[in-house]
Amino acid sequence: MLTQPTLLLDKEKCLANIEHMANKAKNSNTLYRPHFKTHQSAKIGSWFKDYGVECITVSSVKMAVYFANNGWNDISIAFPCNILEWSTINELAGKINLNIVVESLETIQFLEKNLTNPVGTYIKTDTGYGRTGIEAEDYDCMRTLLNQLKTCKNLIFIGFLCHAGHTYKTNSTEEISSIMESSRQQLLALKTFMANDFPLTQISYGDTPSCSLFSNYDGFDEIRPGNSVFFDDMQTHLGSCSHNDIAVALACPVVAKHKNRQEVIIHGGAVHLSKDMILKNDRQHFGTVVKLNKLQWDVQEEIGYVAKLSQEHGIIKMPQNHFDNVSIGDQIAILPVHSCLTANLMKSYTTTDGEVVDMLI
Amino acid sequence: MLTQPTLLLDKEKCLANIEHMANKAKNSNTLYRPHFKTHQSAKIGSWFKDYGVECITVSSVKMAVYFANNGWNDISIAFPCNILEWSTINELAGKINLNIVVESLETIQFLEKNLTNPVGTYIKTDTGYGRTGIEAEDYDCMRTLLNQLKTCKNLIFIGFLCHAGHTYKTNSTEEISSIMESSRQQLLALKTFMANDFPLTQISYGDTPSCSLFSNYDGFDEIRPGNSVFFDDMQTHLGSCSHNDIAVALACPVVAKHKNRQEVIIHGGAVHLSKDMILKNDRQHFGTVVKLNKLQWDVQEEIGYVAKLSQEHGIIKMPQNHFDNVSIGDQIAILPVHSCLTANLMKSYTTTDGEVVDMLI
Repeated sequence: MLTQPTLLLDKEKCLANIEHMANKAKNSNTLYRPHFKTHQSAKIGSWFKDYGVECITVSSVKMAVYFANNGWNDISIAFPCNILEWSTINELAGKINLNIVVESLETIQFLEKNLTNPVGTYIKTDTGYGRTGIEAEDYDCMRTLLNQLKTCKNLIFIGFLCHAGHTYKTNSTEEISSIMESSRQQLLALKTFMANDFPLTQISYGDTPSCSLFSNYDGFDEIRPGNSVFFDDMQTHLGSCSHNDIAVALACPVVAKHKNRQEVIIHGGAVHLSKDMILKNDRQHFGTVVKLNKLQWDVQEEIGYVAKLSQEHGIIKMPQNHFDNVSIGDQIAILPVHSCLTANLMKSYTTTDGEVVDMLI
Repeated sequence: MLTQPTLLLDKEKCLANIEHMANKAKNSNTLYRPHFKTHQSAKIGSWFKDYGVECITVSSVKMAVYFANNGWNDISIAFPCNILEWSTINELAGKINLNIVVESLETIQFLEKNLTNPVGTYIKTDTGYGRTGIEAEDYDCMRTLLNQLKTCKNLIFIGFLCHAGHTYKTNSTEEISSIMESSRQQLLALKTFMANDFPLTQISYGDTPSCSLFSNYDGFDEIRPGNSVFFDDMQTHLGSCSHNDIAVALACPVVAKHKNRQEVIIHGGAVHLSKDMILKNDRQHFGTVVKLNKLQWDVQEEIGYVAKLSQEHGIIKMPQNHFDNVSIGDQIAILPVHSCLTANLMKSYTTTDGEVVDMLI
């Protein structure tokens, strides 16, 4: 019996999510290079192999080392290369096919000077997200970096890598579609512009909302969705999935009830769920509450939502009928707002069959 | 040399913070029962012993077990008792002096039926925070619980435990003072009201803002501040400390720069700092950026602030002069907004002397 906050994993839903994305990529003749930062688990990683996945994405050198040690031979680190880790990168590049991401002359020059093993190299390209990367339409800057890469012996230029993270700030699936189209056009124009000098340029495209909602991957040599392995309440909010697709839920014990304000207190706080949230009707929403029966949660009915979080406490708002049916000592399940951050905090999974699945610590 | 995000700990500042609070409590004849959920470290815990601390607070049964295994014999779990963990609680109560917190008849009745070892018992009391606990002025409810506790063999009533967490939502130190006074008055009135039946009632009072800002602990038998061991940017924002008092900082490598928007990208994201933030002039603020020289950070000058966080990326806004002085491959230090959540994510400390300090995993 569970007695503490526990991250449950529905393997069937997880496999269905993997299969769905793998099939869509296959039908589009696009490589599916899933981002493993969501689950960070060797075991869950191994499930992808049954769907033909051989190439993966991670977001840190530490994660690359972990998955390389667990049998993965083709890994892209989709994060602006941290040159302070050059020696680990170099060592890893001597063992597996390692790809990195650069976006400055300084980084290219430093790595070329220090690396002794070849690494595949993408230029991080910004199609409007505005987090990091070279703007896709800044051809001058792109050309400067490409000319530098041309002179490199160990940095092997592959192409342009883009994460259209602005899909997370949208209010409709039309907006997500429009970001995907705009990103595609910008990346293809860039590729065409550079085609004379760099005829084999690849395009690597990311983000779960657009890759989940749409199936037209034309122009993308690979897609890198990560979150779609589990999905979460942010994705249901964006329209990328339904509650039924979410493959993880946090089981939490009920520890107190407040009748006058219809609030239920659970053991399950910011150290379990993270503080990522959605604004729903101007209210902060840290997760959807559903019923839990032993290790199985039931998404038929939403019985409340997480309205506040402190370190260990979760404060749940519940309509009267559900409030009356919940007792101290019961367990309820939370569909998390951000499954990547929840998994990262929980450090292990318990499947709905009771198996414990470890992850990177 | 550091190459990845690393949580630095200045032992001198930490010891000064412990000493300061221990002395204030001593001068007030109040027991200092520090909350160990902030550092979650046996080693850091041991530093408190030099200042006479023998009794501690934690926020979960798991943490209680960890510190009991590390030599602590008097532990209060300041979280509404999770009855599903009764068997671990019972076992622990057979070994050490264990105190728990209750706020419902159901919990009291369940525990009395199941426990075989005596546990000290507080009633969780709400003086206006509104998170959980019985309202301090709800004498009817208090009396019902107390009458039930009177019949218990293994639940030994100690008193009323209050965390005035609404001090975190204030805009001035006057407001914090007023919350502290109001809490004190409510708790003392409650104690007086119950004095005939329960003459030995103790009052346990929490929260770093009021315990740090003020020294008048009259009426409180013990204080339980936790965050004051490290402090953080939230506490400087509230006025509880200065930047110079903050004993932890996250060292982060610079991986990219964006001149047109004066933004610096670091490896250091939500999986390192957490997503807790302050609103400063209507802008989200996830941490203050200062210079780092090897393992020592320098709070003389604020060189920027963390404006956004994603899983591994931190986006820093920097004024021109500081922006120009930072290079890719440099390291900067972040004073975190919430040191408890940052420590919980980082899972270890590196002291400014280079010593690695472990914590509960």
